[in-house]
Amino acid sequence: MAIKVLGIAQSTCTLRVVAVAKALNIPLEIEAVDLAKGAHKSPEYTAKYQPFGRIPVLVEDDFVLYESRAICRYLANKYQTKETVQLIPTDLKQAALVEQYISVETSEYGAAVGKYVFEVVFKPMKGGVTDPEIVAKAREEVIAALSVYEKFLEGKSYLVGESFTLADICHLPYGHYACNAGLADVFDSPERPNVARWWKTITNEAAWKAAIGQ
Amino acid sequence: MAIKVLGIAQSTCTLRVVAVAKALNIPLEIEAVDLAKGAHKSPEYTAKYQPFGRIPVLVEDDFVLYESRAICRYLANKYQTKETVQLIPTDLKQAALVEQYISVETSEYGAAVGKYVFEVVFKPMKGGVTDPEIVAKAREEVIAALSVYEKFLEGKSYLVGESFTLADICHLPYGHYACNAGLADVFDSPERPNVARWWKTITNEAAWKAAIGQ
Repeated sequence: MAIKVLGIAQSTCTLRVVAVAKALNIPLEIEAVDLAKGAHKSPEYTAKYQPFGRIPVLVEDDFVLYESRAICRYLANKYQTKETVQLIPTDLKQAALVEQYISVETSEYGAAVGKYVFEVVFKPMKGGVTDPEIVAKAREEVIAALSVYEKFLEGKSYLVGESFTLADICHLPYGHYACNAGLADVFDSPERPNVARWWKTITNEAAWKAAIGQ
Repeated sequence: MAIKVLGIAQSTCTLRVVAVAKALNIPLEIEAVDLAKGAHKSPEYTAKYQPFGRIPVLVEDDFVLYESRAICRYLANKYQTKETVQLIPTDLKQAALVEQYISVETSEYGAAVGKYVFEVVFKPMKGGVTDPEIVAKAREEVIAALSVYEKFLEGKSYLVGESFTLADICHLPYGHYACNAGLADVFDSPERPNVARWWKTITNEAAWKAAIGQ
């Protein structure tokens, strides 16, 4: 039985899971959840799939798993082999560094980039009005976060050395939306050459291009 | 060489790491970082240990690792044996569920409980004034989150079945502070008997009592 993911192919969190599936050649069936009709808040969905009413959810026979990063780790742990890309390294310290950067993505990068994307992209989608002051502040926060990334990307192709890992994948969805919504100059700036090089490298990974349908 | 953790024994994120060390009998040396004097923002600290200027940081010979949950996973992966508690289960699906609840702790529980603790405990410490409106709203958000926990704790002693795992540990520090700062009635309420039972069980774990010096 194929693995099913309940979600929206364009959503940032679903994209994270799809990119992992593409990197490891896992056949994944995306079953759309009609957010506009509130399908994710229905009693059936919250009872059976996700009690907080969110996407994505992995369904594999009778096994149900939610939270995109947990789904990504599960897929990597299950499908990664010696022949595939090592999204989670087998070396304990390298694996720990991947986890470090996954957490940094949530607490530093995501806090800033996510705020920008919400204000510019998702807020208007939900009928709200973009606040230029919040946008300007978020832009500065993204620059501040990426200025730190500039230091730890010194001399490295990817976040954890010379291999594309789950840490890089976790950064792609929000960054992709941000670049399409006015922050491309921040991700590709001569002031942060290491970030610009890293961003170019990971956005050109075949798995990511396949995830976004390019 | 002993493993050193730069942090503050009372801080929520350092406590998370200490609880894992206690659960697995790992000798850990806490080296205090003088936050009041801004030691965590010094050029030396940010260059050598944590580029964003935060605690805790694990230092093991020349290996440096930050982000508390990444440190917890590293310690569990390194020191867990067949004879110790299984903070990260070896079964892939059980391990995935531990990761699911670690993420839920961050995105749902921590978002609410952390907001409450910041407003009531940390904001005044930093010279700010607690806003009763924010406190009342955060309290409602904690109740809403725990009402969902009430459902998935049905018939279970711990978040992932009958074993104490890293998922439970991750919930303890913020909940501990919240209970000491006015939310004890929310964590031990007859309206949420499963949550009350779970909270009593995990706060009585020897590792947690040792972490908080009881």
